[in-house]
Amino acid sequence: MTETVDQRLRSAWTPASAEAAALPPHAVRWLTRRLGPLEPGAPVAPDTAFAVPDSRLPDAARTALADVVGASYLRLGPAERLGRAGGLSYVDLLRRRYPGVLPVPDAVVSPADPGEVQRVLDVCVAHGVGVVPFGGGTSVVGGVAALRGECEAVVTLDLERLDRLVSVDPVSRLAVFEAGVRGPDAERMLAAHGLTLGHVPQSFERATLGGFAATRSAGQASSGYGRFEDMVQGVHLATPAGSWRLGVAPASAAGPDLRALALGSEGTLGVLTEVTVRVRPLPTRERYEGVVLDGFQRATDAVRLLAQHGLLADVTRISDESETAVSLALKGGFTTAALRRYLAARGVREPCLLILGWHGRAPQRRRARALLRAAGAVSLGRAAGQAWRHGRFHGPRQRDALLDLGVCVETLETATHWSRLGELYEAVSTALRDSLGDPVVMCHVSHAYETGASLYFTVLTPRDPHDPFGQWERAKRAAGDAITEGGLGTITHHHAVGTDHAPYLRSEIGDVGVAVLAAAKRATDPTGVLNPGKLGL
Amino acid sequence: MTETVDQRLRSAWTPASAEAAALPPHAVRWLTRRLGPLEPGAPVAPDTAFAVPDSRLPDAARTALADVVGASYLRLGPAERLGRAGGLSYVDLLRRRYPGVLPVPDAVVSPADPGEVQRVLDVCVAHGVGVVPFGGGTSVVGGVAALRGECEAVVTLDLERLDRLVSVDPVSRLAVFEAGVRGPDAERMLAAHGLTLGHVPQSFERATLGGFAATRSAGQASSGYGRFEDMVQGVHLATPAGSWRLGVAPASAAGPDLRALALGSEGTLGVLTEVTVRVRPLPTRERYEGVVLDGFQRATDAVRLLAQHGLLADVTRISDESETAVSLALKGGFTTAALRRYLAARGVREPCLLILGWHGRAPQRRRARALLRAAGAVSLGRAAGQAWRHGRFHGPRQRDALLDLGVCVETLETATHWSRLGELYEAVSTALRDSLGDPVVMCHVSHAYETGASLYFTVLTPRDPHDPFGQWERAKRAAGDAITEGGLGTITHHHAVGTDHAPYLRSEIGDVGVAVLAAAKRATDPTGVLNPGKLGL
Repeated sequence: MTETVDQRLRSAWTPASAEAAALPPHAVRWLTRRLGPLEPGAPVAPDTAFAVPDSRLPDAARTALADVVGASYLRLGPAERLGRAGGLSYVDLLRRRYPGVLPVPDAVVSPADPGEVQRVLDVCVAHGVGVVPFGGGTSVVGGVAALRGECEAVVTLDLERLDRLVSVDPVSRLAVFEAGVRGPDAERMLAAHGLTLGHVPQSFERATLGGFAATRSAGQASSGYGRFEDMVQGVHLATPAGSWRLGVAPASAAGPDLRALALGSEGTLGVLTEVTVRVRPLPTRERYEGVVLDGFQRATDAVRLLAQHGLLADVTRISDESETAVSLALKGGFTTAALRRYLAARGVREPCLLILGWHGRAPQRRRARALLRAAGAVSLGRAAGQAWRHGRFHGPRQRDALLDLGVCVETLETATHWSRLGELYEAVSTALRDSLGDPVVMCHVSHAYETGASLYFTVLTPRDPHDPFGQWERAKRAAGDAITEGGLGTITHHHAVGTDHAPYLRSEIGDVGVAVLAAAKRATDPTGVLNPGKLGL
Repeated sequence: MTETVDQRLRSAWTPASAEAAALPPHAVRWLTRRLGPLEPGAPVAPDTAFAVPDSRLPDAARTALADVVGASYLRLGPAERLGRAGGLSYVDLLRRRYPGVLPVPDAVVSPADPGEVQRVLDVCVAHGVGVVPFGGGTSVVGGVAALRGECEAVVTLDLERLDRLVSVDPVSRLAVFEAGVRGPDAERMLAAHGLTLGHVPQSFERATLGGFAATRSAGQASSGYGRFEDMVQGVHLATPAGSWRLGVAPASAAGPDLRALALGSEGTLGVLTEVTVRVRPLPTRERYEGVVLDGFQRATDAVRLLAQHGLLADVTRISDESETAVSLALKGGFTTAALRRYLAARGVREPCLLILGWHGRAPQRRRARALLRAAGAVSLGRAAGQAWRHGRFHGPRQRDALLDLGVCVETLETATHWSRLGELYEAVSTALRDSLGDPVVMCHVSHAYETGASLYFTVLTPRDPHDPFGQWERAKRAAGDAITEGGLGTITHHHAVGTDHAPYLRSEIGDVGVAVLAAAKRATDPTGVLNPGKLGL
């Protein structure tokens, strides 16, 4: 362990010090011009500003847990516990600035391997202690909040030590990883075998394979490599009901595919300790490029055709007019007016930027380009693609800088079938505008399928210094209501449920679905110690 | 209803009268030469040979069911009930020849629409009557046997009247079908919109979309169109706990994907009443061709490379040496010795026939051919492909003719990852040979994935006239043990569990998996009326 999770998380909360986390001067100028006078809000509070209650972990449980993992891996200090008090949502970031009551765990326990995870669970069941599985801590939906539920005490089970590549089967293109392996480490270990996983969500740098599986993550290259759930061939979970392994074949008809219950279970049914994933050869050539289309409707139509012809680039991401304008303005690399004239001369009056990232696949690229030309696309060449690629993990890091400026900044996402995509786009945009006054609302489609696509919204608006929490809560509720009204879309395409989306789950999976989830939980976790309060369970 | 289910099923049980169900004389000669003297077994017994017990359906339930569906759709006659007494496994076919006790339902009830299905379920719950959902009746694993479980009586719920295309969304490429629509009818209705589903399992002609979903069916063109579960975007089930709809988006992270519980639930958790499926444009051009490779290991290696390079034909099916030899012998279209000389001169000494069916996709075909040439493949041209295509649904129909001859004929299938495929092939082949003396054992791979493939075995051996049931039971058990020993493969790749594979389910999904399935069932079907005894539930 060269870097502790505390250090990792703390660095995410450090205001705009690192290069990538800073906002360039022209971006700050643009923001103040667009959003009007901003009132810089509270800075990130020091740890000492937070009242960390004494650990409620009973002595007997403390002894038993230390017996399993060793005393040095059962941590009770306020800093370690505070470091796992939440994830990385806007509300999580706000909480660091407006000290109040944080959901701080009573201890942090770090088992060494799957066997120790099982024994930690057994101890927690025996002592009625809640368990919050913790990977990278990057949840943006409250997924790692240390809620107690009905339990006396709650520990955060940090999977940081489950960091091994267990085995590689290059013939079957399979790799078995322990669940605590982070994205970059997985890629580094696979690269030694000439292989890649190809899963690069925005949380890539910190998040873990177990977390990807537990939350049904989708990466930026999902069009080429699939969602994480598509990659998972096998899972191993520790549950209060015992160890659970699934996945002996690439496909099966041996009853319902129960792997699908583990995927997306967000630590409520068991703790993922190992995942077996499909891997692929490292691409010999990557090519990122930008293309502009005229208007979001035409642009999404073009992406739909790419998806339905099997011609999506590995990364395929189309921004609406607003996001395109903002990203060009914030990049500062283009003379915006000159670019607009250039595009208008080619028939593009409402530019929408399409990023295409090709990992090999030259034949598909040629056919995709022909299709895009027919749709009136204008190429911006590789520079635009490389610029996006360079900054593709920066978004989360820049949020603290925006918060320093007094901006309310958050994202939310959904998905629906193609024929309802325009309606969903309008409904969510309107809900956000109506509840926030005159915000900047931007949107992109970053995950396209034959039958539909995701919509990913980013909102920027002056933070209400008097009610920063309520301001976003109302906007989020308006958007959630707009999404679920009449089953227009899913409440989340890849951010998961956690606490934030739990109120909407029933409208999406029905009373029967909620009953089935609760029943599954009773089977694997009869005393309800696993991640209390998540998924509404 | 131009043809009743009774008629449909009866025709499947009629010995070798129809053209496609007959065995050509050269095939009979080959069989008697290879298997030795055969003792023609019992012919199919007339209905009158079977003792059909009086219906045990209580009068109150009878009245209530007739109130829901109308008296003419509640059928109590022996012929109708006998017609739903089983599926189409070898054991089912044997039972028609050796009259004994059949699992005959107490009534056949045919609701008109999803609403009536729900009301039928409600009546059955109220009266403690078991319900066996019934589509095409093509289960080969005992999935439609009218077992009572703990119930006083059991009815077969025939979905034949749920035969409508509900809606088509050509933009999103989605179609909503009622669950009782049969394969050819679905294709006919979609063809009117220029669309296709592309799901063609061997049961295609009789089986229903609800059945495909409930059993996780995989069609012959699964390499191009996916397994049926890949096509399903939404489901609507009637359950004792109420109506259950799932699937608002092409992808989601709103908790576990509960559609996966409906898929493969085999009528134990609910009755599928509607499925929303992904559809595609009808291919403008289909091209079937045959290619021969030298030895099954080299042949499966080539298919693995096709799968891992994204170059599988829509239909990709490779036969082992034995199946290749038998199919060439049974076809009678080739001069076998001449063909062997031709192939040997090109380096192919152990011919394995690879069928490739391309639905459009000319660019992939060119690249696949280059890869196959490098693997030493010799083309047999289109004739071999067309011959396979022509006869691709004949297998099940010819079984009665084989039974008439005194042959024991059955199939079984499994799947595993590529690196264990050879081991699985040997283990199952050996188990079948050891338990059956000197049978013909043939095998093909008809479903290939990046990480592994299925194995589909066909067995032919002289039927033991003294113990026809025990003969196959022992062979099936030996094969099942070989598959599950050490988690070598899945007990079923696409035939489902039913009763026959239930004993192996625990070894595949673990104690926790069994407990989770049972818990899900308690949530949707608290009194246990749904398809008693299937999936081990």
